[in-house]
Amino acid sequence: MSARPTSEPAGPSVKTEFPGPETKKHLEKIHEVFDSRNAFLVCDYTKSFGNYLVDTDGNTLLDVYSQIASIPLGYNNPALIKTASSEEMLDALVNRPTLGAFPSHNWSEVISTGILRVAPKGLDKVFTAMAGSDANELAFKAAFMYRRQHERGGPHVEFTDEEIESCMNNQLPGSPQLSILSFRNSFHGRLFGSLSCTRSKAIHKLDIPAFDWPQATFPQLKYPLEEHEAENAAAEQASLDEVEHLIKTWRLPPVAVIVEPIQAEGGDNHASPAFFQKLRALTKKHNVLLIADEVQTGVGSTGKFWAHEHWNLPADSPPDMVTFAKKAQTAGYYYGNPELRPNKAWRQFNTWMGDPARAILFRGIIDEIERLDLVNQTARVGKYLFGKLEVLAKKYPQDITNLRGKDRGTFIAFDSPKRDAFIKKSKDMGVNMGGCGVNGVRLRPMLIFEEKHADILIDRLEKIINAI
Amino acid sequence: MSARPTSEPAGPSVKTEFPGPETKKHLEKIHEVFDSRNAFLVCDYTKSFGNYLVDTDGNTLLDVYSQIASIPLGYNNPALIKTASSEEMLDALVNRPTLGAFPSHNWSEVISTGILRVAPKGLDKVFTAMAGSDANELAFKAAFMYRRQHERGGPHVEFTDEEIESCMNNQLPGSPQLSILSFRNSFHGRLFGSLSCTRSKAIHKLDIPAFDWPQATFPQLKYPLEEHEAENAAAEQASLDEVEHLIKTWRLPPVAVIVEPIQAEGGDNHASPAFFQKLRALTKKHNVLLIADEVQTGVGSTGKFWAHEHWNLPADSPPDMVTFAKKAQTAGYYYGNPELRPNKAWRQFNTWMGDPARAILFRGIIDEIERLDLVNQTARVGKYLFGKLEVLAKKYPQDITNLRGKDRGTFIAFDSPKRDAFIKKSKDMGVNMGGCGVNGVRLRPMLIFEEKHADILIDRLEKIINAI
Repeated sequence: MSARPTSEPAGPSVKTEFPGPETKKHLEKIHEVFDSRNAFLVCDYTKSFGNYLVDTDGNTLLDVYSQIASIPLGYNNPALIKTASSEEMLDALVNRPTLGAFPSHNWSEVISTGILRVAPKGLDKVFTAMAGSDANELAFKAAFMYRRQHERGGPHVEFTDEEIESCMNNQLPGSPQLSILSFRNSFHGRLFGSLSCTRSKAIHKLDIPAFDWPQATFPQLKYPLEEHEAENAAAEQASLDEVEHLIKTWRLPPVAVIVEPIQAEGGDNHASPAFFQKLRALTKKHNVLLIADEVQTGVGSTGKFWAHEHWNLPADSPPDMVTFAKKAQTAGYYYGNPELRPNKAWRQFNTWMGDPARAILFRGIIDEIERLDLVNQTARVGKYLFGKLEVLAKKYPQDITNLRGKDRGTFIAFDSPKRDAFIKKSKDMGVNMGGCGVNGVRLRPMLIFEEKHADILIDRLEKIINAI
Repeated sequence: MSARPTSEPAGPSVKTEFPGPETKKHLEKIHEVFDSRNAFLVCDYTKSFGNYLVDTDGNTLLDVYSQIASIPLGYNNPALIKTASSEEMLDALVNRPTLGAFPSHNWSEVISTGILRVAPKGLDKVFTAMAGSDANELAFKAAFMYRRQHERGGPHVEFTDEEIESCMNNQLPGSPQLSILSFRNSFHGRLFGSLSCTRSKAIHKLDIPAFDWPQATFPQLKYPLEEHEAENAAAEQASLDEVEHLIKTWRLPPVAVIVEPIQAEGGDNHASPAFFQKLRALTKKHNVLLIADEVQTGVGSTGKFWAHEHWNLPADSPPDMVTFAKKAQTAGYYYGNPELRPNKAWRQFNTWMGDPARAILFRGIIDEIERLDLVNQTARVGKYLFGKLEVLAKKYPQDITNLRGKDRGTFIAFDSPKRDAFIKKSKDMGVNMGGCGVNGVRLRPMLIFEEKHADILIDRLEKIINAI
């Protein structure tokens, strides 16, 4: 562990332009075997620490993008290195089981003391997965089976021969003509079922066959919120009306609505707790399931462990399923209703069903979040950062618009009319950040982001604005 | 590492019935939080070694199922423990990058000296994934984008506004009405696109919406092969004719054919090299891609590193893409044609794009396979085992029928009219094995399976036959 740093640098330091000469060489080499056109940087993770990412040219950047919001505790976190060096981790790495058919003696303990320790209220079971996309698709599958089970008259009713035969041909009635309803600008993944729900960018969807599933408009709130209350409430009601209309009339009836607590990839679009409360009531009324996609919003960054806690739903009405990935470093969906377990074995199954190594890592992450009270810290630092950003936005009203994410921890974004230049320039100023939507700049710091990092970030943001 | 064994036991030892009392307790505990209805055993992997799996009741079983064919080198393999304890592994575990956007400095080396060292002939690039299902779906996406790019007039032709707008609604022309052709009894995964291709068992497909994609009959060969040559050749030709007919006439034109070199889950169904050569020629003729799904057949168990090497395709006509997972412990698709890279960045992308920790493990697996010449060993041991099974099948012609997998390493199967009883009884006799298809018993030993293990297996198989 000789080369691994044990503390953060005092601040960013930039030595080259981007990409630097070493990074360019690396990219050429990578590109021969692996598509590197998406690459912004080639990083030396061994030299990175905490909130600071080091690239192969020795540039040190304050990282508020965090591998698209998926690093929870900073690079080379000492507690996670300990977790990763444990005998239990070795076991999980070299003896990877078929978790559904041959679980290990410690599997129930790993999930009970890990994944399930932070289960959303009302949801006490989990189905584990590999990443956000398949987590969502497995939740969809549970929703479809649940609906058909109901329509059939209950879990005890056997499949008909016609269903059994027709499903092998991908035809009705065994392969039902049902759907999942998602929202405009949402992002739920890029496999065939999840991509059919994703509506953020055409480049994700072009040329890929999709299911004929419906989308409702997500409310487009105007900022600052306090100046647009009536308008925003009307936008939210219009969205709910559209959801209800689609549930009632769409040619492939929706069995579930999937929604992000904050639409991230699609532009950091927010809606009020009242909107989500009404959405929950509406879906219940029509016997449609509600899936909260917490792949990006989950695990602390909004100042609650799960962003849907901000909705303040009644205790007896949680979302039916909550999906997670990214900062959890593993993935899956939580559920509570035992009927969401399909009525027979082997219906929801695959060889690996996740990765116990990553589940053990998530337990280590949870331990550290609790030990350092990082969710509350993120709420506090987020307030601090938001306050500073409000001041900056007032100073540069042309460059920072639609500042959003108040009281949502560090899950903060704003729009910039020169967004692409803004993001590009940020590296020169020592900050790694990402865009979202059309004009959005999204801040996705780690949970170890402190006031001192916020000060540096604010300083650099001002430099970026002045430079572009 | 105190508790970890360093050598194999002399043979199986069975102490309890199955499931034993400890396993039952574990299953109850697991079931509260995780669906355990699929579980056959609860295992103590720390105590398992090599070809032997130890359950929580202390039963020691010769494992010829290997976590559904996904353990390559045995439990607690010392070389892999070393790999898993390395600094590089620690790095990959605690600093998990967005491989597409922020690759690590060693990523090209990890894949060049690992995944790509064993790339199928003619395929020199890889797109990494998480598991078999998403590996296949990513290959499908590449195939769809490739086809539409051609139809559009080449990679330089821009998308139309109509395409860009319509794809956001999941409608033509942006979301094309195209398909992937698969074979009856095939298994390609259980997400929405891959499940639309899977045709092995209704329980996998019931109640899940599917694309209206076509399936062709896979040849149903009769055994012993030498007694049914004309019949089998006719079955293969009929299958090829059906493929061609479907390519020409299916309402959603197929852009690719996906095929397993040996249909595993669907019953260990084989076809001759001539069949696959003709299938390759046929797909070329119609400008349809050929995807070899090597998720179960890959990584040595057929006596070649990739099972499609048995096809003896011309050097200039490899499959267009080859997918892998399971024994690789990571996943992805290989390809050679640079045009299979979509024409723009971000079209084939996701946050993690696999897991570098598992890619590093695969490199360790490859090192060990080469060091011990395990592919050739598997070819040799497979021949030995097959010979013994032929003798057994002659002695018990009612109990072992359709013995198949000659010269395919240890990738061997047979049918048993009392299959379920056979599998159940095998544990009592100290062997862990699995079924496939309707009556199939599939042998999926690890690559470290030797003649001495084959002798034990044969002895136990005879005991099972006499007991049921």
